[in-house]
Amino acid sequence: MNTLGTKLRVTVFGQSHAPAIGCIIDGLPAGFAPDMERTAAFMARRAPGRNAWSTPRQESDEPEILSGLVEGRTCGAPVSMVIRNGDQHSRDYSGLKRTPRPSHADYTALIKYGENYDIRGGGQFSGRLTAPLCFAGAFALQLLEQRGVTIAAHIAQIENVYDVPPDMADVSETELTALLHRPFPVFYSEAGVKMRQAIERARMDCDSVGGVIRCFALGLPAGVGEPMFDGVENRLAAALFGIPAVRGVSFGTGFDAAAMRGSAHNDPFRMEGGRVTIRANHAGGVLGGITSGAPLVVNVAVKPTASISSPQDTVDLAAGEDASLVIHGRHDPCIVPRAVPVVEAVTALTVLDMLL
Amino acid sequence: MNTLGTKLRVTVFGQSHAPAIGCIIDGLPAGFAPDMERTAAFMARRAPGRNAWSTPRQESDEPEILSGLVEGRTCGAPVSMVIRNGDQHSRDYSGLKRTPRPSHADYTALIKYGENYDIRGGGQFSGRLTAPLCFAGAFALQLLEQRGVTIAAHIAQIENVYDVPPDMADVSETELTALLHRPFPVFYSEAGVKMRQAIERARMDCDSVGGVIRCFALGLPAGVGEPMFDGVENRLAAALFGIPAVRGVSFGTGFDAAAMRGSAHNDPFRMEGGRVTIRANHAGGVLGGITSGAPLVVNVAVKPTASISSPQDTVDLAAGEDASLVIHGRHDPCIVPRAVPVVEAVTALTVLDMLL
Amino acid sequence: MNTLGTKLRVTVFGQSHAPAIGCIIDGLPAGFAPDMERTAAFMARRAPGRNAWSTPRQESDEPEILSGLVEGRTCGAPVSMVIRNGDQHSRDYSGLKRTPRPSHADYTALIKYGENYDIRGGGQFSGRLTAPLCFAGAFALQLLEQRGVTIAAHIAQIENVYDVPPDMADVSETELTALLHRPFPVFYSEAGVKMRQAIERARMDCDSVGGVIRCFALGLPAGVGEPMFDGVENRLAAALFGIPAVRGVSFGTGFDAAAMRGSAHNDPFRMEGGRVTIRANHAGGVLGGITSGAPLVVNVAVKPTASISSPQDTVDLAAGEDASLVIHGRHDPCIVPRAVPVVEAVTALTVLDMLL
Amino acid sequence: MNTLGTKLRVTVFGQSHAPAIGCIIDGLPAGFAPDMERTAAFMARRAPGRNAWSTPRQESDEPEILSGLVEGRTCGAPVSMVIRNGDQHSRDYSGLKRTPRPSHADYTALIKYGENYDIRGGGQFSGRLTAPLCFAGAFALQLLEQRGVTIAAHIAQIENVYDVPPDMADVSETELTALLHRPFPVFYSEAGVKMRQAIERARMDCDSVGGVIRCFALGLPAGVGEPMFDGVENRLAAALFGIPAVRGVSFGTGFDAAAMRGSAHNDPFRMEGGRVTIRANHAGGVLGGITSGAPLVVNVAVKPTASISSPQDTVDLAAGEDASLVIHGRHDPCIVPRAVPVVEAVTALTVLDMLL
Repeated sequence: MNTLGTKLRVTVFGQSHAPAIGCIIDGLPAGFAPDMERTAAFMARRAPGRNAWSTPRQESDEPEILSGLVEGRTCGAPVSMVIRNGDQHSRDYSGLKRTPRPSHADYTALIKYGENYDIRGGGQFSGRLTAPLCFAGAFALQLLEQRGVTIAAHIAQIENVYDVPPDMADVSETELTALLHRPFPVFYSEAGVKMRQAIERARMDCDSVGGVIRCFALGLPAGVGEPMFDGVENRLAAALFGIPAVRGVSFGTGFDAAAMRGSAHNDPFRMEGGRVTIRANHAGGVLGGITSGAPLVVNVAVKPTASISSPQDTVDLAAGEDASLVIHGRHDPCIVPRAVPVVEAVTALTVLDMLL
Repeated sequence: MNTLGTKLRVTVFGQSHAPAIGCIIDGLPAGFAPDMERTAAFMARRAPGRNAWSTPRQESDEPEILSGLVEGRTCGAPVSMVIRNGDQHSRDYSGLKRTPRPSHADYTALIKYGENYDIRGGGQFSGRLTAPLCFAGAFALQLLEQRGVTIAAHIAQIENVYDVPPDMADVSETELTALLHRPFPVFYSEAGVKMRQAIERARMDCDSVGGVIRCFALGLPAGVGEPMFDGVENRLAAALFGIPAVRGVSFGTGFDAAAMRGSAHNDPFRMEGGRVTIRANHAGGVLGGITSGAPLVVNVAVKPTASISSPQDTVDLAAGEDASLVIHGRHDPCIVPRAVPVVEAVTALTVLDMLL
Repeated sequence: MNTLGTKLRVTVFGQSHAPAIGCIIDGLPAGFAPDMERTAAFMARRAPGRNAWSTPRQESDEPEILSGLVEGRTCGAPVSMVIRNGDQHSRDYSGLKRTPRPSHADYTALIKYGENYDIRGGGQFSGRLTAPLCFAGAFALQLLEQRGVTIAAHIAQIENVYDVPPDMADVSETELTALLHRPFPVFYSEAGVKMRQAIERARMDCDSVGGVIRCFALGLPAGVGEPMFDGVENRLAAALFGIPAVRGVSFGTGFDAAAMRGSAHNDPFRMEGGRVTIRANHAGGVLGGITSGAPLVVNVAVKPTASISSPQDTVDLAAGEDASLVIHGRHDPCIVPRAVPVVEAVTALTVLDMLL
Repeated sequence: MNTLGTKLRVTVFGQSHAPAIGCIIDGLPAGFAPDMERTAAFMARRAPGRNAWSTPRQESDEPEILSGLVEGRTCGAPVSMVIRNGDQHSRDYSGLKRTPRPSHADYTALIKYGENYDIRGGGQFSGRLTAPLCFAGAFALQLLEQRGVTIAAHIAQIENVYDVPPDMADVSETELTALLHRPFPVFYSEAGVKMRQAIERARMDCDSVGGVIRCFALGLPAGVGEPMFDGVENRLAAALFGIPAVRGVSFGTGFDAAAMRGSAHNDPFRMEGGRVTIRANHAGGVLGGITSGAPLVVNVAVKPTASISSPQDTVDLAAGEDASLVIHGRHDPCIVPRAVPVVEAVTALTVLDMLL
């Protein structure tokens, strides 16, 4: 369902064209004073319409807090937040119920919910529902910062362009914090230039591209996580697959570990300044579900946006025959950049939940 | 913790060198008569010591059922099962607490549980704990078969050798069932030969190799799964990361989707024989957390075995200095083949849980 | 925390003096068209200020639905609802943090949340938070009605006045439906007259009285509920203790069973019209956690309102000394009548959750 | 299902006449050395056949620990325990499937599980399943003792005999510890004499009697518990209704609060020795779901044993007609004394779960 977390629980609600979207955050420690400017800035990183490579929809994204804060501090009650959907088109979406969009949740939602499914703008499966997640995530990031934990992600891949990461064992807080302030968060700006070119090419071709986001958590104590089915990987994977368009989640070297030998993949221990450190960090900071003290590294594969302007093969459900579909309107050729703060938010919420 | 599932719950217990390992299966429908021969055959696929490329430890793996079955049928009470650990070495493991094995859960378990952690044979993190999962999974596979669902996996990759899968949209029940009876489950036997050679080379080099397992579920109805945080991907990923050495979980085209364009990745719909089918199946049978009716395809990355015979850099925790470690004894150079039934078991348990 | 249910989940938010209160209902079947007039009428039964014996606060209780309904029908997305708090006094509540009210959650909330706790009007512990529960419960009652299940409660006791219930085995749908339309829901109107007199006496004495609510569910199939820790009793009790001022929950004959012998307490079976019936129904329709087909009967003890106008012994936390407290304003001398629909709502939500 | 708890989880398995019963305890802190003699002594308090007023069945109750302990200390892995059922009668129980016992879970289990239900000796609903709960509870009691928390219960009522409790606000550790060592745990021995007489009279009459158990937890810090649906009351009630024959759960003054006025029921605060104390403690140590620092007081109503030797009205399910049933064999005329340690165990497990 639409609730994330155990001790810190975020319940998300809304559809793209409902009166509003929003969330309830339950389990925040009392006395926390969220920085609302930072929260707004974090949410803005996800918002569409900010630049050439994103969807042109102008969303207000103005959160109104209905409960849980008194004079700017959490009081122990759940924080509830609502964002009004100002931008509700009266456009007719009923055609999409007849000729479903390939690789879109519309189709499976129609099967599950029947004709009452709210297909307008992607309904409850719209990327817009990630705005409340970012709101909640911004709070989690600030609370983690108070605990000495920094979370930040970079775009590791767009189509066939890679942002070669620094040594996963040695990424610094400075490097990570810098990512949080870049409009296009990569470690190497040249990679970023090429990625944006790949996105632009896809846009010119009425097509879309996918990518990979790599998220780091620095400063986590060793020993966090439970064995087997409640480990850090289980919890983070379950959470991150809640983000639309995510097709894979891996840790550290991830799927590349499949091609490696143990002698290359094993992370050596070394004493440094009187304490145990872990070199290489192919494991991504977690062994057997439990954090090792090395930076946590999680990779998220994002598929190319399903909505493209080119003609596609689909079916006419009413006529019971094959059909061709052209989706009108401008589409975001790559949601990866906007998904970066969402990955950070979901990671932060899950990590904080395990620390509480 | 050590419990998997919601309506169908498997709780696993034991350590490698405890008196026993086992599991409790709660929520099985009453009146089910498990085929114990098939169960034993399924468990045997996971058992070590069967051939040249696996660990030489001879485990009994003889399950004793303590409750939940009356005259061979489930009675509604939880099924409990115990496997005695006959093979308990009196060998001294205390050295491993001083010089932890690189990339092994030993290290994080020591931090979490302290000196009382049972490090003998990998303790509760031992691959041996997957035997009860296979026992429970064998039941789930049989119950799914009664519902027309077939689950089977192949070895998709070992080091740099690939078993190129058939069209993910058209894999047949015959092909899948065949996999279940192959000692080395690949679609193409040449790939299997090369994979075994890669494993043998690693063994000769006192090293290990990783791989990828791809698991299919055929016959699932469309519309299974809940949106956002309780979708098929969330549930399966959370479960599969409970298997030791798993580093990544993806669906359909998975991480390769990152390099694709939407026009290539989107799965066309087509009418065939009066019903909607999905071509290509890059999505792996699930859209927005909900099954589409196409075969479910999940990929699992397995790291190379951490225990290798070559010398490795570690630390001496007592002396507080760098150290070198050689792990004695024969080691399994590749656990991927034995992990295949475990992936099938965990997939089956999770899928059945969502159907109940 | 503030979430009720498993497959049908209600998350409640708000404080008495926050901008709003409300709830999210996740898991409602798609295509359900709630009757909003009936919903409003049901909520009105809980609202204060309707008559002489309740608190004079005039609440608007006007729910605004923000998502989950399209053209009056559920679309599969969570239903979210907000009620604005129009009636926010600017009155100073800080004194209550210094001299806590006896037997009030204020005191424990202050310990738990510290000085940031929102003490105004009882904060998140205010009875006002039961309004969203009634909203959600009204939906559940309508969905249960579609399944042939009727839920209704009567006031079984106020102070030392009892509404002697009819035979618990034979209560009829007509009798139950009648309760739902009575402003003061008792089976026998003379009992109701005496109860209101007891309340009025308490009010004249600047005091308050408690009572017992007995709730019936008619039409439940036999066989609902899981054994041991997920039975009907476990689930209902856990839910009903979420209502403020509830001090006890029992089933059927409840605590009176303690004084009975087995020969009197055991419910005989009898064949009637070709089917098994249960006489007497001391068990209250549930045996071993599983429904028996007899009417479900649950009793809820409600303590006398903690807020009374008479002087009370408390402490001055700042001065560290004993103190006397007089709580000003008009207080509800008995919340039992208003708690009746809340008990019905929580019972309905829990029962529906077990049926989904 | 058969699992209790969140962070500390006990999963119970077995049937009365299965090869074994037992439990898995997951989440115990590592390094805990359970006192096995005290554990055995605690379990013996529940065991039948010890004296005139209990059932004559001689159970071995000898627990065998299969995992989780290394050299007598918890290692972090789940503790698993098995008790063999030595005493399996070959007697024919099939008659009970035809003429169900009034007020017994047999009937509802037959409806739920069908003909495969294991009816022998009460199957999974047998009181024998409380032995593993006592095993786990003994561990919890010892861990709570280390945290300064004492848990003990007395028999508050048998039929119409009451053990008048001391002031609920002032019960001392000495008084509670004394209860734990009494074979018939009451505060006042005269009450105990009369209670045993009532039990003996019931036995002579081929009948049974019910009672009330009151359990105290002393030393709990204030501030434990979450609001609304995860409070101390919700959690304890959900757990305690898992004990067979429990019909009601209340806190402090419980259902008697219904007959009280607020001026009498409210618990005054008083400064004593520089700290806030709570007088009277009608609230039973919990306000709004959160502990107040006063002793936690929970009352549990136990129905008279359903199995009695007198003839009873039932139905013949095969013939579809009314029938008379006489249950042969000796029956326990009152399970209340043996249920005392079970209530203590379940309370301890739940309280410890909330403290972890």
